Formats: sequence, structure tokens, C-alpha cells
Amino acid sequence: MKIGLKRVRELLRKENRKALGLFLVEGVRLVEEALASPLSVECVFHVEADPDSRLARVVETAESDGIPTQGITQKELDAICDTRTPQGVVAVARTPTWTEEDVWKSGTGDVVVVDNVRDPGNLGTLLRSAEAAGARGALLTAGTVELTNPKVVRGSMGAFFRLPVSYTDSIDDVLRGVRNAGIPLVATSSHGGEPANLLLKWDAVALVLGGEAEGITRDWNRVCDCIVSLAQKRGTDSLNVAVAGSIFLFRHLWRIV
Amino acid sequence: MKIGLKRVRELLRKENRKALGLFLVEGVRLVEEALASPLSVECVFHVEADPDSRLARVVETAESDGIPTQGITQKELDAICDTRTPQGVVAVARTPTWTEEDVWKSGTGDVVVVDNVRDPGNLGTLLRSAEAAGARGALLTAGTVELTNPKVVRGSMGAFFRLPVSYTDSIDDVLRGVRNAGIPLVATSSHGGEPANLLLKWDAVALVLGGEAEGITRDWNRVCDCIVSLAQKRGTDSLNVAVAGSIFLFRHLWRIV
Repeated sequence: MKIGLKRVRELLRKENRKALGLFLVEGVRLVEEALASPLSVECVFHVEADPDSRLARVVETAESDGIPTQGITQKELDAICDTRTPQGVVAVARTPTWTEEDVWKSGTGDVVVVDNVRDPGNLGTLLRSAEAAGARGALLTAGTVELTNPKVVRGSMGAFFRLPVSYTDSIDDVLRGVRNAGIPLVATSSHGGEPANLLLKWDAVALVLGGEAEGITRDWNRVCDCIVSLAQKRGTDSLNVAVAGSIFLFRHLWRIV
Repeated sequence: MKIGLKRVRELLRKENRKALGLFLVEGVRLVEEALASPLSVECVFHVEADPDSRLARVVETAESDGIPTQGITQKELDAICDTRTPQGVVAVARTPTWTEEDVWKSGTGDVVVVDNVRDPGNLGTLLRSAEAAGARGALLTAGTVELTNPKVVRGSMGAFFRLPVSYTDSIDDVLRGVRNAGIPLVATSSHGGEPANLLLKWDAVALVLGGEAEGITRDWNRVCDCIVSLAQKRGTDSLNVAVAGSIFLFRHLWRIV
């Protein structure tokens, strides 16, 4: 699919990404990841590339996959990028259309439920960790930052190009999912929950992580099987949500001593 | 100490922060943390505050501590802030002058050696986790982003207002530190090291974390007691350095099953 530069620029806005089902992938490394992933890459814009460069190889790969490529100026590139120093290439990709069912059926690991996480860097980092930890995928509530935000794409290092991620409309759908999967629904809190190592009872859980400011919404606390917290030194601030989520997701590392 | 607004604005630049030994603390929450910490707060600039607001209470606290405060306009505030939407208050604080010795002597937890971490958000998050995990403190190599960068301050949520953090000039100094402390020097790598749970052998370690791009420098690998890696799902990207560091720092959570 060939898309004009003006159209591409519109993808910097969330509404347009939603309406068109397309998003931007910026930089050599992420475009490489996109081309190697199941993602449908629609076209690639790039500045003039040194023939021996990594950029040139990316453009070649795209062309040999039959993807339209177009040379543009640095100024044109800057205009379609969110990053301040874009690295020579931007791809337009089709937004993955995973369903909740796809998430639940993807392997046997944890499912991460991301509730009201507003910071795109945090969501990106969380997805990167979820993939690395072997999670099935992630379910995002409506209050969570939009998945294809350029800062989420960057923070995730392309994790959601491969990892199933879906929005979820209702707690009931999630409850049906955990019941079918036969795993517990575990809410996390920065304080007052049961000790984290309770989680070692189960091979996999659905782990609910809440927003930076207010934590998870009360509704999850009512329906979950348990609430767990990470023990911290007294008087210290709660952990960054992506960090806390990652500590929970990598708990299996410490199991066999 | 009273400081003019023009002087304060200069603190947005690293060279000036270094030369003056002062840095900026932005926002109600961080200024609260600074006032409650051992940090020496030199003065506080604030916009007009609703008498019942959290901002008004911060200004009161500063005044009752004998710290000069000065009302300024929103425009003046914007000019001395790194954040796009500053929350009404900026404090000028004296940069802590911890030594390496202070770090080693601060408790019995881990020491985090941060080598060439360039992203201020990552350093900030790492320090926040280090404090929450009960680490002694952190040693930063010369290639690591500057500690009082406004994005480090924000990411750390003020952790280094309390946690001893020092620059370190040489690997030899660190080696002397670990020897005196009687703990091992453990390098981390995104792949190829020994399993992470090797760390459970020790109550505390000096943990070397490397930069986002190239990992730790070779010199550390030569002198460390062991190199450990976090096992990840095959074919996935390495973890964010702040996440990886935090997973190591919170290993004790999973010890008692």
C-alpha cells in the first residue's frame, strides 16, 4: 500500500492512527524488528543511505519483501517523526488486531492486565519485559495509554509486533478469560498486599498492574483472587510500575536455588 | 542562601550545576521530598498558591525551616523548569557530596555500580529501585549521565536525596571497596552469564550494570568475581537496564518460599 507523506504525518495523531489502523515505526532497529515480525509493513520512507550501511540493508529487505519504499529528504523525515533525532527511516505498519482470545491462547505464561497506565514509556517497557519473560500477552484497559503511541513503540523495542496485546472492555471478559485458562487473577498494590512470593504457588497468573498515580481501580480489588505487594525498605517511595511488573514477571528466575 | 532568577535558570545546564554545586528540584512532590530529606535546600520559588493547597503547605514548611522563598509568575517559573508543565514550585538544592566511603559504609545491602548508563530516566529509576530494595547506595562511572540532571531527579523520585551516591574514578577504588566490605563484585550481562540465582549465595553484592547500548565495559568483566544474566525467552530483546537492575536488587523477595 502506497501512502503519501502528508497522510503519514497525520499518523503522529492518535485519532488518525485509530481511524486508519496504521502507525509509525521509527529508526533502523525498530524497522528491522517490524520487517522480521508478523506485522504488516505497508511502506518505508528513508533518507539516502550509504550502500554498506545498516539503513541500506533495511531498505533492501523491505524491497525484497515487495514493500514500497521511498527516498525522502532529512527535512521530510523530521516532519513525520516523533523522535528529535530520527535515524534515517520510518515505516508505516498496520496496527495488530489481536483479540482477547488471542492473548489467552498464546502459550501458557502470565497474562498482564494493564489498568490506567498513562506513561507511554512505562507501557512500552512493561511489554518488553512481558515478552522477555515469556508472558502470553497483555490486556489494556481503556484508561491505559494508546498502544501505537510512538513512545510506546520505542519503549517496547517492538515487543508488541510479536506479543499479542488487546484492549479489554470489561472486567467480566477478563474474569471469563482467567476462568477458562484456569489461572488466578492477581492484583498488585504498592503496599498492604500479601507477600509477593505467594505467586510462586502458580505457574502462571493474570497479573493486574495499576496506573502511576492511583494504582489499580477498586473494581479489580473486589474480583481478584488475591492482592500482592513487593516488600520494600520502610519509608521509601513505591516502585515504578514497569519495574514492579517486571519483578513479578521474572519471579521464576529465583525459584530453583 | 538567596539566588537570583537568572542564576537559577543557569542551573538547567550541567556545567553550571557542576560549577556551583547546586541543582533544581521541580514540582510539589519532589520539593516535599527534598525538604524532608538531609538535602540542603537553598531557596524555593513558587507561583501564587491557593491557601489550602499542597503547594501552600510546601512553601510554609520551607519558611518555617528558615529557607528563603520567593513568589514568581508562571512565566518566570516556566523559564527555570525542565518539565513542560511545571507544578508551581522549584527549589534550589545543594548537590550531595557523598564519597565512595559513604556508600560502602551505608548499611549492609547491595552496592550498585552504574557504568555508562546514558539515559537519565533509566538512572533515576535505578536509584529509586536501589533505595526501595535497601541497597547501600550507588557508584557512578564517568560515562554515566550526570546525577543532578532534572530527568534523573524526576525518575529517582528523590531517592538520591537520601541514598548515598558517588562518582567513582577507578575500578581499583571499587575493588578496594568490595574487598573491605567482604562482598563479591558481580557483573551483569544481557546474555551468556551464569544463572541469576547464583546471587542467592550472598546476602549482599556489588552489582555492576552497564549502558543501554554496549553493556558494561570489558574492564569490569576482567576483575569481577562472576558474570550473571537473567534468563529470557529465546529470541527476545534484552531488558531495559533499570528493569534488569531492579530484578536483581529485589531477588531476596523470592528466597523464602
